[in-house]
Amino acid sequence: MYLPSWLSQLYRGLSRPIRRTTQPIWGSLSRSLVLSSQRRNPEFSSFVVRTNTCGELRSSHLGQEVTLCGWIQYRRQNTFLVLRDFHGLVQVIIPQDESAASVRKILCEAPMESVVQVSGTVISRPAGQENPKMPTGEIEIKVKTAELLNACKKLPFEIKDFMKKTEALRLQYRYLDLRSFQMQYNLRLRSQMVMKMRDYLCNLHGFVDIETPTLFKRTPGGAKEFLVPSREPGKFYSLPQSPQQFKQLLMVGGLDRYFQVARCYRDEGSRPDRQPEFTQIDIEMSFVDQTGIQSLIEGLLQYSWPNDKDPVVVPFPSMTFAEALATYGTDKPDTRFGMKIIDISDVFRNTEIGFLQDALSKPHGTVKAICIPEGAVSEVLKFFSTRNLFANFIRESKRPELIRLMETQEEDVVLLMAGEHNKACSLLGKLRLECADLLETRGVVLRDPTLFSFLWVVDFPLFLPKEENPRELESAHHPFTAPHPSDIHLLYTEPEKVRSQHYDLVLNGNEIGGGSIRIHNAELQRYILATLLKEDVKLLSHILQALDYGAPPHGGIALGLDRLICLVTGSPSIRDVIAFPKSFRGHDLMSNTPDSIPPEELKPYHIQVSWPTDSKAAKAH
Amino acid sequence: MYLPSWLSQLYRGLSRPIRRTTQPIWGSLSRSLVLSSQRRNPEFSSFVVRTNTCGELRSSHLGQEVTLCGWIQYRRQNTFLVLRDFHGLVQVIIPQDESAASVRKILCEAPMESVVQVSGTVISRPAGQENPKMPTGEIEIKVKTAELLNACKKLPFEIKDFMKKTEALRLQYRYLDLRSFQMQYNLRLRSQMVMKMRDYLCNLHGFVDIETPTLFKRTPGGAKEFLVPSREPGKFYSLPQSPQQFKQLLMVGGLDRYFQVARCYRDEGSRPDRQPEFTQIDIEMSFVDQTGIQSLIEGLLQYSWPNDKDPVVVPFPSMTFAEALATYGTDKPDTRFGMKIIDISDVFRNTEIGFLQDALSKPHGTVKAICIPEGAVSEVLKFFSTRNLFANFIRESKRPELIRLMETQEEDVVLLMAGEHNKACSLLGKLRLECADLLETRGVVLRDPTLFSFLWVVDFPLFLPKEENPRELESAHHPFTAPHPSDIHLLYTEPEKVRSQHYDLVLNGNEIGGGSIRIHNAELQRYILATLLKEDVKLLSHILQALDYGAPPHGGIALGLDRLICLVTGSPSIRDVIAFPKSFRGHDLMSNTPDSIPPEELKPYHIQVSWPTDSKAAKAH
Repeated sequence: MYLPSWLSQLYRGLSRPIRRTTQPIWGSLSRSLVLSSQRRNPEFSSFVVRTNTCGELRSSHLGQEVTLCGWIQYRRQNTFLVLRDFHGLVQVIIPQDESAASVRKILCEAPMESVVQVSGTVISRPAGQENPKMPTGEIEIKVKTAELLNACKKLPFEIKDFMKKTEALRLQYRYLDLRSFQMQYNLRLRSQMVMKMRDYLCNLHGFVDIETPTLFKRTPGGAKEFLVPSREPGKFYSLPQSPQQFKQLLMVGGLDRYFQVARCYRDEGSRPDRQPEFTQIDIEMSFVDQTGIQSLIEGLLQYSWPNDKDPVVVPFPSMTFAEALATYGTDKPDTRFGMKIIDISDVFRNTEIGFLQDALSKPHGTVKAICIPEGAVSEVLKFFSTRNLFANFIRESKRPELIRLMETQEEDVVLLMAGEHNKACSLLGKLRLECADLLETRGVVLRDPTLFSFLWVVDFPLFLPKEENPRELESAHHPFTAPHPSDIHLLYTEPEKVRSQHYDLVLNGNEIGGGSIRIHNAELQRYILATLLKEDVKLLSHILQALDYGAPPHGGIALGLDRLICLVTGSPSIRDVIAFPKSFRGHDLMSNTPDSIPPEELKPYHIQVSWPTDSKAAKAH
Repeated sequence: MYLPSWLSQLYRGLSRPIRRTTQPIWGSLSRSLVLSSQRRNPEFSSFVVRTNTCGELRSSHLGQEVTLCGWIQYRRQNTFLVLRDFHGLVQVIIPQDESAASVRKILCEAPMESVVQVSGTVISRPAGQENPKMPTGEIEIKVKTAELLNACKKLPFEIKDFMKKTEALRLQYRYLDLRSFQMQYNLRLRSQMVMKMRDYLCNLHGFVDIETPTLFKRTPGGAKEFLVPSREPGKFYSLPQSPQQFKQLLMVGGLDRYFQVARCYRDEGSRPDRQPEFTQIDIEMSFVDQTGIQSLIEGLLQYSWPNDKDPVVVPFPSMTFAEALATYGTDKPDTRFGMKIIDISDVFRNTEIGFLQDALSKPHGTVKAICIPEGAVSEVLKFFSTRNLFANFIRESKRPELIRLMETQEEDVVLLMAGEHNKACSLLGKLRLECADLLETRGVVLRDPTLFSFLWVVDFPLFLPKEENPRELESAHHPFTAPHPSDIHLLYTEPEKVRSQHYDLVLNGNEIGGGSIRIHNAELQRYILATLLKEDVKLLSHILQALDYGAPPHGGIALGLDRLICLVTGSPSIRDVIAFPKSFRGHDLMSNTPDSIPPEELKPYHIQVSWPTDSKAAKAH
């Protein structure tokens, strides 16, 4: 296995693919940090005692006196050891002559993962002993002096085993996990990509990076907001889910173009692959429309996209919410593969099959289907255990029409669903993804891992019926979203039919961003909040007032950075692109967080713990 | 008053001074955005409906058809109005002919601070009507179409008056305050300076921008940490005062060079010019010593320093803590002016003056003095009301020696202090600053506002006696600070004498940063925590364990960004460089934060409010 220098690619961008891996592959990570005219090469050894990084040494360094600092990765027969730093690995020859006894002692006795500093000369490896799989494989270090900077105690496990261990162990010893190639790569790629985003927004397009408070007021319906007790009895701050109000107020304040890499908080209890604190690229602009924001974001992603991936092609395709639901059964379609939902209601208009008849007779009743290519070969049918059952019900005469509509081939499987339009689509959408998973476990490549398929989903409904009381409305996204210009008249007659100026950005079936043009008219905002949503307007009086005092038309978007980097790096979880993530239960397993607090430390905040008294409450946690 | 273009200076850097001002001076803010070879010019009008910003138009745009968006700043006699955006002001001619009645109506009837969009042609002002004080003063806009984007309700005050109003009013209507030149300038300068810092750290020196959690475990002695109740009964997160533990763990994890523009939290109750959440430039490096960190920071500030200020000269001078205390009576000396503390104990060794005799006979007893130049002329003495009193006590024979030591001139005033060394110095240090204030109110220029005087203060004590029990020790900074290499042996015998490898960065008498080389040896860290500081080691067991598993030598620093930008912009308060600051009582006056929470929203967090029962507790808030 041979890998080009991941670090020079990250920082300067040769267009070579980096293999995704979850195994430490330090041996083959780095290549010469060739100077690029595009970008200065960072000085990795400025201000410190080392002269070079381990991973950067090449034949071009032959004869140089170098000082290196790193961890002992490997030692063989007390003749050489492999030294590792963030940049890569280098082979160090342990001197065998009597005069170097003290150096020899240090290098032979230091336990694995100890930190040492060595000085010596870069020499050629003896002919035939070069290691072409190792970027530094042509050279080795002839050591003159060595110093043990810190000895490593015996690890509670072999580092190699550790990498295969449970995620709980990785999180408990996060500082060891961070030494792995994959974590180093993920965190550095994240840093570089965010830096390029900042460059694009700040230097190319005049955006202002503005920090907004995280100690704020609870927002209406903000049941998922963490609370922070203040020193005033009964008064609390909330940790907001986004800087939504502040970004809009900045537009009212004439800042024109705002962005922030914003820390956000959401308390959703235990949820897999969610974090109680997360980061979004938060953007707001004045005098902009939906197209403007979309072009901005397309340019942003294109500009910041890692050089080791295929370039991003713009503009991104766009699809209405209605179309996404009808075709993919979801508002975040994975458009890397087909298996689209087809409406086959017409085939069965006069059917004698009871349940189809029944479904079609109801409001919004439909018959929908997806075709799973080679589903029969891939034994998808076994999963559904309905093989050959339903097909018999369909009259011979209907079959050609169905085959034509579905473009079915030999050995394909057609899954059919009858029922209310939205529900039927939604269920088929889920089946579509499950079938894709099934097919891929059978070796069919449906979703090319090197493909990044962006999609805008637009024209969402502005309101949705409340789940607990479908006769009342709630915002589909948030109450500041502007209605679609064509639908404004419906606000006063059939508000449930109003589309919004909200847009979602979807990547490979994941929502990675969402935004909208906002309401800038105070009267409209008041009507929607008070009359349609029946919210407590007092909690938002500052926003309504701000809109009254010369708010410009404005709109924005937020990109979920953790999810985006997770997809870019092909990581199985967002925890792999966060330095110190919480477990799915919201715990920091390294430090045992959250933790008990002595009662006297609660006193200044005028709170006390309500210990659950009955078993039911105790069981709930 | 004539000002060069503040915006082009910020983004590209012509070396022209910007006048500090707290008044809105939009009329004279911008000049041509000349292209610079150094830096691309941001496209301020990309993705939006406008073709140009108001402030950028010049004679070179003559004849161009432009579309502008902005706020109505001013209107005269229904013949012209002045339109404002973030970039500056431009004059718009209201058409007088009958055919343009609708445009005329819009522009004449829209209230001040309304938002309008106008399209028209850039034309020359009639000869003699150019305004040389206005960057756009050679041209005006002949309007063809106009649209009222949002009408402004009658403001609760005149914008001009508002600027002179109390800070409480400014904070309550922050979105209006943000429209002022000074706030626009401060926030944009902050954004640009941070961007340059990122460029320096990330692109020039290979630092990795890594986000660390803010929902963490309380730290030992973290009484100033906000608490965040979790959904587990009795379990709390804390909002940490800094990412100290995480940055060290990142070094153990081999990240080598970390930085973060980090949000930090400190609950100090009501404190003037402090904020419950604040921002620091947080930095940590492996294999570095004190000199390395200092050089890094000097380079960082030099690189990111605004172009409209005098360049930063490096290296910064350095002074030991002992020297700073003895010479300036403080660990953050303002070295822009003299009035240093002089030890005059020897003059009074055999004095007959009782209280001097008394002071000198005690341990560390000294007599110290400062000389206030022209203090008599400036009537400083009136302030002290001791004029001519003490001088009479001093024997004629002593006077020449005193005058020589103090380098006293005619009309100078000497302030003398007798007592224990540290206390005497500390008091004189405070008097020195108060005298400087007094002198400056009398018109003496002691502290040049264009001068930025950086200073390193080093060799702090590692421990201080606890205030409540002086026989016990506490960390002078934090328990991870490494002892001075020359003093390590004293740790086991006279720990109170051990100096640390802590360093503070001082600018014009303000501490703007602090850091240290950290302890990387687990045994030493354990000894200091458990034996010397008697801390609960359990709370930090993860750190001790991490040090055991191959922690590299490392060190770092944190710069207080709010204070730094406050000094750079010459703002009276850090609230002027924060978009949405809290009041000194920790309130957001715009939104009424913190606020009450309905009891049912406390339930998921298993807390309840302990309402104060007696009047004393109620009075405390």
